[in-house]
Parts: sequence; structure tokens; C-alpha cells
Amino acid sequence: MAEPAKTLDGWYCLHDCRKMNWTEWKKLSSDKRESIMSEFMKLLEKWDKTQAKFEGSHGLYSILGQKADFMIFLLRPTMDELIELETAFNKTQLAEYTVPTYSYVSVVELSNYLPADKDPDQDPEIQARLKPILPKWKYVCFYPMDKRRQGNDNWYMLPMEERQTMMRSHGMIGRSYAGKVRQIISGSVGLDDWEWGVTLFAHDVLQFKKLVYEMRFDEVSARYSEFGSFYVGTMLDDDKIKQFLHI
Amino acid sequence: MAEPAKTLDGWYCLHDCRKMNWTEWKKLSSDKRESIMSEFMKLLEKWDKTQAKFEGSHGLYSILGQKADFMIFLLRPTMDELIELETAFNKTQLAEYTVPTYSYVSVVELSNYLPADKDPDQDPEIQARLKPILPKWKYVCFYPMDKRRQGNDNWYMLPMEERQTMMRSHGMIGRSYAGKVRQIISGSVGLDDWEWGVTLFAHDVLQFKKLVYEMRFDEVSARYSEFGSFYVGTMLDDDKIKQFLHI
Amino acid sequence: MAEPAKTLDGWYCLHDCRKMNWTEWKKLSSDKRESIMSEFMKLLEKWDKTQAKFEGSHGLYSILGQKADFMIFLLRPTMDELIELETAFNKTQLAEYTVPTYSYVSVVELSNYLPADKDPDQDPEIQARLKPILPKWKYVCFYPMDKRRQGNDNWYMLPMEERQTMMRSHGMIGRSYAGKVRQIISGSVGLDDWEWGVTLFAHDVLQFKKLVYEMRFDEVSARYSEFGSFYVGTMLDDDKIKQFLHI
Amino acid sequence: MAEPAKTLDGWYCLHDCRKMNWTEWKKLSSDKRESIMSEFMKLLEKWDKTQAKFEGSHGLYSILGQKADFMIFLLRPTMDELIELETAFNKTQLAEYTVPTYSYVSVVELSNYLPADKDPDQDPEIQARLKPILPKWKYVCFYPMDKRRQGNDNWYMLPMEERQTMMRSHGMIGRSYAGKVRQIISGSVGLDDWEWGVTLFAHDVLQFKKLVYEMRFDEVSARYSEFGSFYVGTMLDDDKIKQFLHI
Amino acid sequence: MAEPAKTLDGWYCLHDCRKMNWTEWKKLSSDKRESIMSEFMKLLEKWDKTQAKFEGSHGLYSILGQKADFMIFLLRPTMDELIELETAFNKTQLAEYTVPTYSYVSVVELSNYLPADKDPDQDPEIQARLKPILPKWKYVCFYPMDKRRQGNDNWYMLPMEERQTMMRSHGMIGRSYAGKVRQIISGSVGLDDWEWGVTLFAHDVLQFKKLVYEMRFDEVSARYSEFGSFYVGTMLDDDKIKQFLHI
Repeated sequence: MAEPAKTLDGWYCLHDCRKMNWTEWKKLSSDKRESIMSEFMKLLEKWDKTQAKFEGSHGLYSILGQKADFMIFLLRPTMDELIELETAFNKTQLAEYTVPTYSYVSVVELSNYLPADKDPDQDPEIQARLKPILPKWKYVCFYPMDKRRQGNDNWYMLPMEERQTMMRSHGMIGRSYAGKVRQIISGSVGLDDWEWGVTLFAHDVLQFKKLVYEMRFDEVSARYSEFGSFYVGTMLDDDKIKQFLHI
Repeated sequence: MAEPAKTLDGWYCLHDCRKMNWTEWKKLSSDKRESIMSEFMKLLEKWDKTQAKFEGSHGLYSILGQKADFMIFLLRPTMDELIELETAFNKTQLAEYTVPTYSYVSVVELSNYLPADKDPDQDPEIQARLKPILPKWKYVCFYPMDKRRQGNDNWYMLPMEERQTMMRSHGMIGRSYAGKVRQIISGSVGLDDWEWGVTLFAHDVLQFKKLVYEMRFDEVSARYSEFGSFYVGTMLDDDKIKQFLHI
Repeated sequence: MAEPAKTLDGWYCLHDCRKMNWTEWKKLSSDKRESIMSEFMKLLEKWDKTQAKFEGSHGLYSILGQKADFMIFLLRPTMDELIELETAFNKTQLAEYTVPTYSYVSVVELSNYLPADKDPDQDPEIQARLKPILPKWKYVCFYPMDKRRQGNDNWYMLPMEERQTMMRSHGMIGRSYAGKVRQIISGSVGLDDWEWGVTLFAHDVLQFKKLVYEMRFDEVSARYSEFGSFYVGTMLDDDKIKQFLHI
Repeated sequence: MAEPAKTLDGWYCLHDCRKMNWTEWKKLSSDKRESIMSEFMKLLEKWDKTQAKFEGSHGLYSILGQKADFMIFLLRPTMDELIELETAFNKTQLAEYTVPTYSYVSVVELSNYLPADKDPDQDPEIQARLKPILPKWKYVCFYPMDKRRQGNDNWYMLPMEERQTMMRSHGMIGRSYAGKVRQIISGSVGLDDWEWGVTLFAHDVLQFKKLVYEMRFDEVSARYSEFGSFYVGTMLDDDKIKQFLHI
Repeated sequence: MAEPAKTLDGWYCLHDCRKMNWTEWKKLSSDKRESIMSEFMKLLEKWDKTQAKFEGSHGLYSILGQKADFMIFLLRPTMDELIELETAFNKTQLAEYTVPTYSYVSVVELSNYLPADKDPDQDPEIQARLKPILPKWKYVCFYPMDKRRQGNDNWYMLPMEERQTMMRSHGMIGRSYAGKVRQIISGSVGLDDWEWGVTLFAHDVLQFKKLVYEMRFDEVSARYSEFGSFYVGTMLDDDKIKQFLHI
């Protein structure tokens, strides 16, 4: 009999990656650009207020390479709010100068492969992990992933205990990066095309490579993981947003 | 000798996913937008009348993420009607402001893996499942899927009895979500690129994740299922449609 | 020593799938649209004359879903004629309002897996199958396919006799649909990206699903077949073409 | 210890496939079209002179189906010349009315799987095969391919002798089509996305299908080959080019 | 217990491939084109100064085939600088006449599969390899690659020693091309969609083919490597850039 991992689920997540249409953006008058940016900054202020009340969180990131120019990462208690915010952004003037390139829908997830000696609904640490305020660390990395179901390498056919042992070893590698890399795991089975989204934060971008590479030799990754596209970049605070959009 | 499952087939289905061209939509005068929306609302009224006569059903949904802004799910007794409705919608003014992103063609299906102690043509419950009026539940989830035919994991080479046993266990997971998740299975072998479409409805979007994740550990999914893209969102009633299109 | 199946080859085939650019089409004056349609109807008249002389055949179909709005299926004794007709259509005014979405190049094929007790060049039945006038049945279904060459499931490594036995069983399923489904198999090894194209015709679209699903449990399909995209729709006669293009 | 096949390498190859933008092309005045065509014909004259001096070769082909409207096949002693010619063509007026759809970079290759009893640098036959003037045969077929490296079907792990035996059998099928099909094999390991490009020429297009199908039952193809897209069409001489571009 | 290879990491890399929009470029007045080119040449001068101070390096290459018209290869000590340079280029006038087609993010990497008898932080040779000034050799080749994790061919499940032995044999093939081919390996686990990027330089383009083909028979490649797209072309110095952009 199949024994699925039990999960704790927190805030809903939208990763929204876009390119700028620089050609059209540059054609605008400086005044017009200012007014568009000010409309966008007001939206960000509203999001900041939500975050100040711990009713959601968000981050804006500059992405390196042609996959995207920037990524918005939005977290909210309900999916309805995410749909609202996405539509609201799509109706801004700035959105007219962007081209959507990738998005990901998921929900922050903790799994019971970890020892469960606490009451998750009461435990403040677990609650903080389920409803995370995004750290203002310099670098971000996002990628979606699956557990493999292929011939003899079928994660979902393994007994619970074996999965638990492997996940514990995996978690130990993660913990050895404490202080260097923070991660948010969000589940997307039934919500988007991969099973999980992984968002990493670091002060030193090289730690993403070191962590993911070290894990790849761990059996969970080596035999049982499939990876989607990687998006890597730097946090954009208000000043950097203006600089990014400045012509 | 191969022994295929026997199926009961009901209404034909079209899932039609589209993005809005917000840039062009916003350029219109408010009057023009009103007139376009009113043309579209009249189309919906016609569909409502069809549904009131139990001669078809339909739903309109807001989709989260860049895969689509909205999805129309149309069910009719014949494929001819679906072609007519699709062409009619394509000729509306609203369609000019949409970009097709994905569609799926299928027919509502019940399979004989379930015990067959009733005359399907007479049984009102079976008839209602074959010709379903879509529930007005808040959340929707759509995805296409295949049964795998790969090396030792070949569903279609299994004896009927083994398939039946596995499907029964699978169905039991489904039934444990009664009241939380309703599902419409539609067959698309010979009609579209995957073998089935699955449309789920829930009051709480998290139940989609819980159901699909639990099933993934079941042998039918773990060893024998391949999944396409997942589209998830919320029902749009008339008020929400206006709000969605409002600038 | 490899023993390939011997094939009989008939008319060359082009399946040409397109979407309408409805936005631009609707912008035209009604007169302009009439004149474009009349140019296109004249092309069809020419094709009709060719068909009346048994020097080729053709069909026009409305396709359900976003993969295409319509499909032209053209058969001619030489590939040169197909190139000519394709280029001629591309130069029509109607073509300016279409967007190509998929095409397929093949040649009608009969294989010697069937018992060969006749002289194919003389036998009128075989000749009629190699140079088929398309039936005016209501529904059409087109899909390309491969025989698999993968690990232990490698069709091309099987001895001829085994292939013949399996194809015979496959053919028996096909024959049990006589009167319900007609099929044209066209070979495309060396001509296009899959090995065969399958075009089915039916009075009842559900028969496509029943036939393809039943065959999928047959070993030839279950273990040895890979399928491309499925295009399904209804025949467009002259009246329906006008209705389809009418605004 | 790995023992790679030794290769002889000749002229560099560019296959350049494009569609016409017929809509824009038709908008031009007949005079403008004439002047664009005359600019292009002058380019072809230059290429003809190069070919007359045996310093390269080229062919122009009409392609059937939506993958391309035409293909240019260019051969030159250096890659630098190909870059120059490609850029020069891209700067012509005709190029403005074309849409690139596929290209392939390779170099004419002979391999030592064939018995090597000659000095390749001196042998005129080998030199002619390495620096081939393209035959003016009516039909052309181009496709890229790989040797498979998959589980037990890994070409590159086989001992040289086994590869040689299989290639010899493969070559014998090829030779049985002498006079019917001519082939140019060009290697692209390290140059483009597949390992080889195959360009076939025939008087009768059906011979492409017969040859490639017969080979598919040969172990080299059946177990060890992966195929890319197939492009098939007819040679365009100067008259046919004019006819092709004529409105 | 998994034992990952230890890596030394140097400068961050961005490969940025683009096509020219020749149609729009040609529409410009010669003066306008001159002024755009001069803006771009000034950017290159700035990059040259950085390189003169050994604070980064860059190369510009003409690419053969439709995948790209040119490639910029940028190396800098931090990822932040690459984001800045990418954004700066995107805001130039020249960028308006380019279409991004592919990019790759990585960091120069040396791995400890090689004998480690030196202190990498002090050793000038190792430092020069980690922070390489690009050689001004005539030809360039770029491709991304993975180590395979598939069934019995799973690189990441092999013991360190076995990996080391195989990499040593692989390295010996590489060294036999000393003076003919120079390579820069950059790691991209956690940064982009493949695990490594390989950039090769040669005086004779044929050496790329010879090297990559010879390596393909080596077990590391034959059993354990997956390859992405190959981009091949020639170095563009200032004169050649002007010639390339000249109409």
C-alpha cells in the first residue's frame, strides 16, 4: 500500500519571469517613463504594506541571461490573491513593456520526511517557514524539479522508510550550508508542470553552485531528481529598480 | 489476446485556454470595451440557455500564471457543435484581444474498470456523469495524461484483471475526496495528443495538490502515468468576468 | 539479415493545417472577402476537375481546437504536382489570412504484411486503394506515427514472421470497423519526420476513439508504436466553406 | 581503449532552409520584384563561377510542406567562405522576404569503415567525393542523424570491428541503389546539433523512401540511429526559380 | 556516501547569442548606422580597458548558420558585473537591431579530478586558467553539456575513483590537442540549464570536429555525456565587426 509523505502547506507562490521590451521602452519620453515607474512603485508600496502586516511577501530580482530580465516572486495566503495581483500587474503600464517568459505556481511546503515532534499549527518556527518573509539576501536562484519515475529509478515506488533515509541525508547537506544558503521549497503537484519549486537565497552566488553540485552526488538527486530551467540573479531594491529601468 | 477496457462516452469537451492582449485591450475606449463585453455576455447567455435545457454545459475560469489568463470549458452532445461554438467565439470582437495558448479535445468517459451492475443507458446517475452540468465550485484544475508504455512499465500490456485491481485502488483514493474534489474524466485517444483529460473542481485549491500527490504514490500513477501541463484557477461568474476585463 | 517489408506506393500526399487570422480577415470589406473566397473556390473547382478525371483527390476539413482551423488534404500522382499546388495556394489572397501550423508529406502505402496473392499493378481494388478518391464521410482524423526502436521494444529488429503475425492481428481489429471507419495509410520514411501518416474517415467521430483505443491494447501499438499529434474535425463542402469564412 | 573511426574531411557545408513571406512579397510592384530577383540571380551567377572553377558547389531546392519553401545547399573549402556567403545573402533584398526555418553546419566526410587501400590525398575519386560538385538530379532529401548512445544500444561503446562489420552491411544497401540515389555524408560532431547530415539526390523521389526504409531494418539504423527532420523537394534551376518567385 | 568532485571557480561567464534584424538595419541611413556602430565600438573599448587591467575578458564571434549571427562571450570576476554589462548592452542602439537567440550563464571551473599538488590560490598557472584572457585564435566553438544520470549510466552514482580514472583518460585526449585546441570549461550547476559550458578555440576549425569526435568514443562521453546545441564561428576583431555590420 502506497504511503505518501504528509505535507504542511503555507503561502501560495507565483514566480513571474519577464523580459523588457527595451526598444519600445526607450522610445518613450523621459516623463512618460517616470510616470510609468511611479505607477509601478506605488504597486510595490502596496505590496510592502502587505508584507509589513505579515500577510504576504514578495521579491523583485534582476535575472542574468536571455531567459528573463527580471523575476517577481509573490507569496500570499490564498491563490485568489495571487490571481488578483497578477491581473493587476498585467494591467499596469509597465507590463506593456514586458514580455512574459516563464511563470511558476506552487505553495510553500514542509514535508514529514523531517522528524515531527512538534505541533505545526502552534510552532512559531514552523509557521515562519510556511509563511516566509523573503530574506533580503543579495542573490536568488529558482528552479523547478521532479522526483523521477523511470524504470528502476522510481521514487514513488520506494517504501516510505527508504525515502525518509535518503531525504534525511539530503537535508544534512542542506543544513551544512546554514547561514550561506536559505531555501524555500514549494510544492506544485496538481498546480504546475513540475512537482516542486526551489527558491534559494545567498550572499555569495557561488554557494548556489556548490550546494546544488554537492547534492547532485547524493542518491536523491543522482538517481531520483529531474531538473527544469535555472533562473539566477540579484535582488532589486527600490534604487536598483530605478537604475534598471533608467535610460 | 488484448482486452481493452470498455468505455461509456458522453458529451464532447473543448478546453480552450487563452491569454489577453492587455496592451491592445487597454488602448480601446471605455465605450468600445463595453460593447465588446456586451457581445461576449450575449454569447454566454446563449450558452446558459443551452445549459438550462441540459443540452450542454460550460465554465469560464481565470488561470494563474503565464500559461493562460482564462480557460473556457465547453461540453456539447456533438463535436459539430463544439466546432461551431469555437468558430463563433473566434469571430467575436473579444477574440481579437486574446491569444490562444492551449486547447484540448476529448469526450466525457466512464470506464468498465468500475463494477458494471447497471444499465448505463437507463441509469440516471451514470447519465448525469456522462452529461455533466459543471459544478459551480470555486477552483478548477485541468491536465491531460497518458498511461505509460515504456519498457517494463507498459500499461497496455498488462492483463485486464491487473489493470482493474489497480484502477479500483486508484478509484478508492478518489472517493476518499468525495465532497472535496469532483472530477470529470474525458477520453481523448484518437482525438488529441494525450489519452485523457482530467478536470477537477474544489472548494479549497489545496485539495487538488493533496489528491494528485496522494495518487502519485499509487502504482497506477507512480509506474504507469505521464502528465501534461497543469492549468489551475478560479471560476469566473458574470461579475468576475466584468471585473477581470475592467480597466 | 534484415528483411524489410515490401511496400506498394501510390499517390503522394500533403496534409496542410492552418489557422485563420480572423482579426485581419474581419477587417476586410465584405466585397473584398467575397472576391478572395471566389478566387479560392476557383482553385477548388480546378482540383475537383482533377479528381473527376481520377488524376488526384483532395479534401477540406474544419479542425477542432487551437492546433488548426482547417486542414487541406491533397493527393497527386507526383510530388512535383504537390509542390506546385502548395506554392499556388500560398500565392492566393486567402493564404495571406492563414497561418501555417503543421504539414505532413507522405505517399499512400500498402505493405506486404498482408497476404499477396494478386498482381498489384493489375488488380483494380489495390489500384483504387493506392490512388484513393477521398470518401465524403463526415469526420476526419489525422495523425503521424512511428514504429518504436527502443531497448527491448525494437520493431525493426524483429524477424519478419513475428512482424507479420502482429500486423495481421492489427489488421483484424481494423477490419472489424469496416463500414464505420475507412483509413488511408501513407508512408513517410525518408520524406517527413514520422514513419507513417494515418488518415481516418468516419460517419460517427466516436469510432475514431474506439478504434484507436482498441488498437492501443494490441501488441503492435502497445509495445511498438509512437504517436504524434492528432487532428480531428469535420468535412467542409462548398457550403460549409462559405459558412466557415462568413463574417 | 576507445578506437574512433578515422575520417577524411572535405568541403564545408551549409544547408539553409527558409520560408517565403508571400504576403509582403506580393505587395511589391512587379518592377521591384524584378530588381530583387535580378540581384539574387547575380549572386547565383557568382556562385556558378566558383563552381565552374571547382572551388565550391551549391544547389537551390524547392521544399514540400510547411518546414520550408526552399533550401540553399552551399559547399566551400573553408568555413570562413560560408560565413561570408551567408552574411552576403542575409544582406540581399530577397532575404528580407524570407524567414529562416532551419540550417545545418557540417563538413563532407568519408570514414575509414570503408577499406582504405588508396592514398586519399592523391586519389581523384576520393578527392571528387570530398569536394563534390552537386549532381543536377531532380529530387533532393536532407536529414541530420546521430548514432545512438542509450543503455545497451551504445554505438560508441562497440569495438571498432563490430562497427566496421555493421557499416559494411549498411554500405552494401547504399551501393545497391547506385544510379538511383547519390548521397553526400557530412560530419557535424562539434559543429552542429546532430553528428551527421545526409543529403540524398534521386531521379525518382520514391527511391529516398525505399532506401531509407530498407536501411531502417539494418542493425546500424534499427538499433543505433536517431533521425532529425527530413526535408524533401525538387531542384530549382534558373527558370524554376523565376517561376517560383513569379506572382 | 557521495563524494563530489571539488572545484576551483574563477570568473563568471555569459555567452550571449543573437541574430541581426537585417531588414530593419538596412532601412537606416548610413549616418545612423555609423553612429550606432560608434556607440557600440565605445562599449568595446571600455571592455578592452577592463581586459588590459586583467579585470575581465571578452570575445566577439561571427556564428555560422541560423542559430545566431554573432556571439558575445563575457567574463568578469562577479556575476553583478555581468548583469550590469548585459543590461547596458540591451540599452544600446545596436541591441534594438538584434534578436536574442540563446544565452548561457556559468563560471570558469577547474576540477580536482586532475592531480592537486599545488596551492591553487598562489599558483600563477592555475590563476591564469581560472581568470583567462581569451585567446585571439581564429575559430570558436561553444556547447553546453551534462553528465548523464540514466539507468545504469549514472555518472553521479559512480565511486570517485572510477570517475577520476575516466576523467584522466578524457584529459589525455584533450592534452593531445595542445597547441591546436584551447578549452575553457565553465560550471553551471545551479546557474543554468546544463551542468557545464565548453568553449573551444582553434586555428583550424576542423580540430573541433576531430577533438569532439575522438572524445565521443571515450567512455566519459560515450556512456556519460549529453550535449546541447553547438555554436561555431570565427573571431570578429574591430575591422571584421565593421565589415559584418556594413551594408
